[in-house]
Amino acid sequence: MTTEPPVRASGAQDAAASGLTDPFGWLAAAARERAHAGLTRRTRPRAHDDGLLDMAGNDYLGLTRHPDVTRAAAAAARRWGAGSTGSRLVTGDTTLHGELETELAAFYGTEAALVFSSGYAANIGLVTSLSGPGAHLVCDRYNHASLIDAARLAKAAGARVSLFDHADAAAARRALAAHPAERSLVVSDTVFSVDGDLTDVSGLARACSDAGAALLLDDAHGLGVIGDDGRGALSAAGIAPDDRGGIVATATLSKALGAQGGAVLGPHRVIRHLVETARTFIFDTGLAPAAAAGALAALRVLRAEPRRPERLRSIAHRLAAGFRELGLDASTPDAAVVSVRAPSPDEAVAWARRCRDAGVRVGCFRPPSVPDGRSRLRLTARADLDDIEVKRVLDVVGMTRPT
Amino acid sequence: MTTEPPVRASGAQDAAASGLTDPFGWLAAAARERAHAGLTRRTRPRAHDDGLLDMAGNDYLGLTRHPDVTRAAAAAARRWGAGSTGSRLVTGDTTLHGELETELAAFYGTEAALVFSSGYAANIGLVTSLSGPGAHLVCDRYNHASLIDAARLAKAAGARVSLFDHADAAAARRALAAHPAERSLVVSDTVFSVDGDLTDVSGLARACSDAGAALLLDDAHGLGVIGDDGRGALSAAGIAPDDRGGIVATATLSKALGAQGGAVLGPHRVIRHLVETARTFIFDTGLAPAAAAGALAALRVLRAEPRRPERLRSIAHRLAAGFRELGLDASTPDAAVVSVRAPSPDEAVAWARRCRDAGVRVGCFRPPSVPDGRSRLRLTARADLDDIEVKRVLDVVGMTRPT
Repeated sequence: MTTEPPVRASGAQDAAASGLTDPFGWLAAAARERAHAGLTRRTRPRAHDDGLLDMAGNDYLGLTRHPDVTRAAAAAARRWGAGSTGSRLVTGDTTLHGELETELAAFYGTEAALVFSSGYAANIGLVTSLSGPGAHLVCDRYNHASLIDAARLAKAAGARVSLFDHADAAAARRALAAHPAERSLVVSDTVFSVDGDLTDVSGLARACSDAGAALLLDDAHGLGVIGDDGRGALSAAGIAPDDRGGIVATATLSKALGAQGGAVLGPHRVIRHLVETARTFIFDTGLAPAAAAGALAALRVLRAEPRRPERLRSIAHRLAAGFRELGLDASTPDAAVVSVRAPSPDEAVAWARRCRDAGVRVGCFRPPSVPDGRSRLRLTARADLDDIEVKRVLDVVGMTRPT
Repeated sequence: MTTEPPVRASGAQDAAASGLTDPFGWLAAAARERAHAGLTRRTRPRAHDDGLLDMAGNDYLGLTRHPDVTRAAAAAARRWGAGSTGSRLVTGDTTLHGELETELAAFYGTEAALVFSSGYAANIGLVTSLSGPGAHLVCDRYNHASLIDAARLAKAAGARVSLFDHADAAAARRALAAHPAERSLVVSDTVFSVDGDLTDVSGLARACSDAGAALLLDDAHGLGVIGDDGRGALSAAGIAPDDRGGIVATATLSKALGAQGGAVLGPHRVIRHLVETARTFIFDTGLAPAAAAGALAALRVLRAEPRRPERLRSIAHRLAAGFRELGLDASTPDAAVVSVRAPSPDEAVAWARRCRDAGVRVGCFRPPSVPDGRSRLRLTARADLDDIEVKRVLDVVGMTRPT
């Protein structure tokens, strides 16, 4: 934090000179505060053929450029058009969306599915539609930003929100007991995006079942990665997400499934409720046909090649073990993500830049994208990496480490 | 509203019998309440070749299936993959996104642009990033759901939210004066989606300028439709949305531009601020390459064929005049949308169904999608309709009217 007083940008000084106030004058001071804290960010457009070895994206199964997937996406754009033309309650719903939902639900083991334009939109729609005045949301402290925003909206609508310590099912149980409500919901990521660690899904499910609470799980980093043939976190925990269990999951189509969009996976009656009440479903344009077709093709590749998730996880483990052999502070991967601690936000940025200069793109997570305030490199394993590429990643990250 | 007590669904009765509570038991009663109010909704998947004349979508310029647009979308899917693979701050930013942003900003007359995965996400990101504790948001009562959710999130973060009467710039001015704040922002749609009416953009701009307030305009239904060669609502009002004016717009890539996604259009310093702070930008997967490429190709068609918006507006006027000749209560179109009042939600649904049976797809808006509680048919003109199609629409809507 800087202690400087707010100052105005140059445009603002002109405006001030003419007797007006510059409505965006405060932005300059805010930018300086972020710069002082080492938190400047910018987009860095990549070329389609930049030749970097990608260890930063979420294309876990290596399907976003799979020929079946790109062919299906391209064919859908030509057949249906570049967009869906409206809300799914008006013109934005196609037989393609229905096909995708049917196959997603069958794969995940739920009665039904509903596709949104993003995982962010799916989480906001699900959480707000199932809460309401008097509801009690019990949320993991490290939940994804979309679940946090969803809880803020639910709170604004009269729900109570409690936070529990990260991945601590006993703490979730205590929070449920502390404020008995007519409608209680535990909300958590399954695999957390920053460190790739898995929550205690079974423990949360038991706590919910004992308290008569619903369990909403964001399986964005679990679908296609963990569980039986990549069926996700509920499958990994041996839980069938059926109606009786009061469990609903969200997933994304933009990670293991290589496309764009999000989905809610759950009982018919929950899906029907969302169609009629979820604002991010009703008031948003339906997912583009190319994205729906790409995700559907990816799901079919995953079903046809069920060893991909296992290969992915074994690569994540080899990376983590290799980093530790190099003396680096690496996470133990429960899924596809391996994170490596960096000394500071600035050093994390510099380290990632050195990796990129050496031909390997790695992620760099700093506050406020990290719940614990600790900066790190974030690497994502991919099912399509070969042994030479894995070795190259270890070499490059090791050689470029901060001194 | 029903006065019945809440009852449990059959699954819930099993659960109750076993001594547990069904966390989703309340959904059945909620569904019944909506059904009693005539507000049941469901998706209705369309085939790509259903042969209906579409008067319900938002493909205003008829570009979603334009060969240049679908070819560009398909080529991008093949070249870049079906998805962008991550947040735009990690791997989701491509040179394609940058190209689109540069051309969008130039077309709209702003310094810069930033593309989001949806207009919903763009509105939430913009409004929350520019408000904060102590800010005062002054919002049109009929704003789009995404702006309402954005204001709710801003309020949860400590902003004050005032509503002003629909399209009443004098009321906005009074609301600004009533609560002087260090940071005030007027937030409004330009063209409102339900009736297609235009707000008083000049009046709002003057009110903001006099009060030192920022003006945030959602031009989702204005871009490509109104203004000089389709440059949108600010152009139509003779306002250059430059830095000094404190004006920022959002637009969508899923309506006139025929694809998917949203964009913020404004000064560099606002765009930089969003890159560093907008949660729906930072924590969302970047827009799929096919959607970015489709929107870019559509923008280029629009620039090459600048008469499309004018043709679109003249068709909207012919439709509205034709409906009035038939004695129907039609809106006066400021843009592409023509709405026709229906006696009740149920009759609106039945009327729309009769139109569809006669080969014309029209929209049907009911509460809660209509701010004034009045159900109506909603028809959208398209630039690519020919005279025979316009006549057919008038004939079908007239012949199927409620008796």
